[in-house]
Amino acid sequence: MAYRPTARTEATRLAHRERLLDAARQLLAEGGYQAASISALARRAGVATGSVYNHFASKQELLAAVFRHVAGHELDAVREAVRARSSAGEQLRALVEVFSYRALHSPRTAWALLAEPVDPLVEEERLTYRRGYHLLAETVIVAGITSGELPPQNAQLSAAAVIGAVGEALLGPLSPVGARTDPEPVVESITELCLRAVGAKSA
Amino acid sequence: MAYRPTARTEATRLAHRERLLDAARQLLAEGGYQAASISALARRAGVATGSVYNHFASKQELLAAVFRHVAGHELDAVREAVRARSSAGEQLRALVEVFSYRALHSPRTAWALLAEPVDPLVEEERLTYRRGYHLLAETVIVAGITSGELPPQNAQLSAAAVIGAVGEALLGPLSPVGARTDPEPVVESITELCLRAVGAKSA
Repeated sequence: MAYRPTARTEATRLAHRERLLDAARQLLAEGGYQAASISALARRAGVATGSVYNHFASKQELLAAVFRHVAGHELDAVREAVRARSSAGEQLRALVEVFSYRALHSPRTAWALLAEPVDPLVEEERLTYRRGYHLLAETVIVAGITSGELPPQNAQLSAAAVIGAVGEALLGPLSPVGARTDPEPVVESITELCLRAVGAKSA
Repeated sequence: MAYRPTARTEATRLAHRERLLDAARQLLAEGGYQAASISALARRAGVATGSVYNHFASKQELLAAVFRHVAGHELDAVREAVRARSSAGEQLRALVEVFSYRALHSPRTAWALLAEPVDPLVEEERLTYRRGYHLLAETVIVAGITSGELPPQNAQLSAAAVIGAVGEALLGPLSPVGARTDPEPVVESITELCLRAVGAKSA
């Protein structure tokens, strides 16, 4: 029998969905996508396996939703750190440092966001979020060129290059099979490299 | 009835496999992984659909084999160009330029190799090939530091960063939905950025 969802059943539904996303975030931080099976997820969230499908059409859709949630949170944090600075050099430093420190602080989640081989649906999300970072970096570089702080350059290419440099330099330190390293010299090296790359005076 | 493969049947088998890989390379260049369906592949190679499975256990395995074949060819070409130069700056320039020009010359294939969302099996191959490029760049940077041509730096991080910068800067120019751009200024911008990043004197 079809029925009309009341405000109350709708609230319960959203709470369940939130609980599932939360469980998925935990599993991702512990063991990446491979740890986030539907059955592990249902167990962690304390719901029946079948009820997961009331919220997500497939495991792929669930993973894409978790990716959006976690990656969106990261992008917001980096954006906020950039906004808190003024010069282009300081803003780029904030972008690279906050991105890198947060990644190295949650290596398993960062690996899942950046590199872990996964379904094409999540790959699409990855491309979307990379573009979000490109735009953020491009805004900073354009402002730096305009103010004369940075030399003239193709801001769009430079922005993508900086984001690619950070993400790829972190692959080694983040790799689940690699040894954990002291974050500070890693982040400092990456930051200096990125500042040199766009011709910023090292701050 | 089981039979022992003779040299002749084995040669035929290998020739068929080669024909299938060749057809897959063509389809990849025309429309990426989504164009390389088993049926399109069989049609292009002039074999029965079912016989594709005599050579590859699944479409995923076929795509991974094509990836290895094409990506290996690219890595070889870049390696050769690097070997033909001597100073670290010139070698890095060769690496970035040859990688980028070849990519921009075959944009659909390059997009498939670098970014197109695809099965995790191919993603694994992507990570492997990125590491191959990291090692190549690292060798060049270490030699440059040793000779005093490059300033002291974490060569492993710098190498990964340079490869990440090139790959990601090319995403915009390579995107199947973007407009095609003149390769020369793009490659020159990316090359200069990478040389600045590692502290090389622009050659």
